[in-house]
Amino acid sequence: MAFEIVATCPATRARAGLLRTPHGVVETPVFMPVGTYGSVKGLTPRHLAEELDVRLLLANTYHLHLRPGHEVIRRLGGLHRFMAWPRAILTDSGGYQVFSLDSFREVTDEGVIFRSHLNGDLHRFTPESAVEVQLALSGDIMMALDECPPYPVSHETARQSMERTLRWARQGYAYYRRRLEELASATPPAWFPIVQGSMYADLRRECARRLVELDAPGYAVGGLSVGEPRALSLEMVDVTVPELPADRPRYVMGVGLPEELVEYVARGVDMMDCVLPTRNARNGCLFTSEGRLLIKQARYRDDPEPPDPVCGCYTCRHFSRAYLRHLFQAGEMLFATLATLHNLTYYLNLMRSLRRAIMMGTLPEYLRAVRSVPA
Amino acid sequence: MAFEIVATCPATRARAGLLRTPHGVVETPVFMPVGTYGSVKGLTPRHLAEELDVRLLLANTYHLHLRPGHEVIRRLGGLHRFMAWPRAILTDSGGYQVFSLDSFREVTDEGVIFRSHLNGDLHRFTPESAVEVQLALSGDIMMALDECPPYPVSHETARQSMERTLRWARQGYAYYRRRLEELASATPPAWFPIVQGSMYADLRRECARRLVELDAPGYAVGGLSVGEPRALSLEMVDVTVPELPADRPRYVMGVGLPEELVEYVARGVDMMDCVLPTRNARNGCLFTSEGRLLIKQARYRDDPEPPDPVCGCYTCRHFSRAYLRHLFQAGEMLFATLATLHNLTYYLNLMRSLRRAIMMGTLPEYLRAVRSVPA
Repeated sequence: MAFEIVATCPATRARAGLLRTPHGVVETPVFMPVGTYGSVKGLTPRHLAEELDVRLLLANTYHLHLRPGHEVIRRLGGLHRFMAWPRAILTDSGGYQVFSLDSFREVTDEGVIFRSHLNGDLHRFTPESAVEVQLALSGDIMMALDECPPYPVSHETARQSMERTLRWARQGYAYYRRRLEELASATPPAWFPIVQGSMYADLRRECARRLVELDAPGYAVGGLSVGEPRALSLEMVDVTVPELPADRPRYVMGVGLPEELVEYVARGVDMMDCVLPTRNARNGCLFTSEGRLLIKQARYRDDPEPPDPVCGCYTCRHFSRAYLRHLFQAGEMLFATLATLHNLTYYLNLMRSLRRAIMMGTLPEYLRAVRSVPA
Repeated sequence: MAFEIVATCPATRARAGLLRTPHGVVETPVFMPVGTYGSVKGLTPRHLAEELDVRLLLANTYHLHLRPGHEVIRRLGGLHRFMAWPRAILTDSGGYQVFSLDSFREVTDEGVIFRSHLNGDLHRFTPESAVEVQLALSGDIMMALDECPPYPVSHETARQSMERTLRWARQGYAYYRRRLEELASATPPAWFPIVQGSMYADLRRECARRLVELDAPGYAVGGLSVGEPRALSLEMVDVTVPELPADRPRYVMGVGLPEELVEYVARGVDMMDCVLPTRNARNGCLFTSEGRLLIKQARYRDDPEPPDPVCGCYTCRHFSRAYLRHLFQAGEMLFATLATLHNLTYYLNLMRSLRRAIMMGTLPEYLRAVRSVPA
């Protein structure tokens, strides 16, 4: 994997780049739709490629490990072939999901033991097994196993957790490099460690500095959007990004709302992912140029307008709010498909317009304009 | 609407035709996918037009009357515009659904009173209101309100029910013609009455003969596939078809399995509809050249083959049984989309191959071949 910066904003930390993966070039900043179980809910790969021009998808290691099992996917030639997706894939490590589980879990220095949310079976992730499972899935970018503390935690707890994340990252990266040598693949996946440290600026800085010693191909910021005020998430990114090498991609995990993505990009973030556009779509919340549209509202019953009059997506080109509301009320699954197509179009167009502004040197004006609009 | 017969089978009653509707030409024999609520579950109109080349869809008047309401659809320009489907639509009359309801209903000579399965509200369909509701939906072909008796019923009950269906047909047709004159549409919808008579050959013949006096643009056979043995359904079609005018399309409602469609076509039937391919798809049952495939079976867990090795549909071109099984087990809605695309491809290809055999004069050989394969 190679990362090339093609433009930087003179007034902010934002940059536009090209991420070259074994499965195609990804223009950054990039938003990755989430394909939890090897499918973006409601969309075919053709929708993703032809309607949306998605270049990079995220798939969840925790979920695919449990179902159908990473060995099944390995036997079937990896995730690209399994889900018929010829473009790039990033797999997370499963850490975030495991630490979000209600069911029993135990964290030790060796790794984390957890119960499947499906059948209660005991499973274990270690820094090494997280690499092994992701090698079986065979994505283009894999993530380190990290500990993701809840919010809030004490400084002492956050430090202990950060130290564990650092140890796991060193172990995982050593294992990853050893396995890459054994595999001698012509198109090896990349591996990103994850900066933790809860909402403590000193810990975030320290974690970033010590991870940079690994000289990894890219760096993620995890443990945000776990319930903290948004100003605090932005502050954590503000203190972390300057510690990360300028020539490596920076990925803020699990964010966010459209107005938040703008702020992360302005702070020098290159990659983001979130279930918001897809989950909100299924729940009847559409992102539009005029704000959020809650399709179940009675005012849309007879409304012949498309969801967003200035959107050119398949959904807005063909269907009225009235029809979409009807599908939603009737529980028709076509609603999820059409709403997901629209919301992802909205998110991806937002990223394209941010990239264009960075390329044209007009990001400061762009930011002034969007920041003046109430969310 | 015009119907032209372009080939007949010398050995059977089968014929190939062209049904010219205000929304395009339909090659017959034709199988109509069911779009209950103005959506074929899981598919976009683009799937239907571009992947499947569907020319004629069925929509359910009962369901659309209750939700979103036919007046909403009328205000939004009719069903074609509402669901963004530029090709032909047939609407049923709602009779079949009403008579299938568990909830309270009362049949009188004037019509049928029923409770909505959604909220218990009282509704009423009359021969005239069924026309009016369907005019609001604005399909290309509408159906008469009929009484659909359960199976079995006595000869006396069946006769009384048939007489009511006949009276309703005469009333409905008179109302339809009066409304057409008022509307003076350049592209008026057609109207088909429905032959009833339970499983009594004499009643079926009599009902058909008396309906033919109306000189309607097409004729349907209803009240089949209500629990009777399949031989009896075929016998009812056998005795009814010779009574119907050769130059009008014949529509057997609500059938059937692939092997049954073949038999109906051989008996001179031009049009059929059924939820089987779409509902079975969602339940994990795929129709293939090798028979039914139940995707949840453990044997498919690691199976890299497509559902049907000789099928060229989008699903079979891209996805393995293993991936489809995984989607099904994980409850991913993409499964329904991919399985529905496949099953409808199977049904539509079956109709295309039957039409080709009729055109080429090879239907007898075709029938010998398919009848020798156990279902």
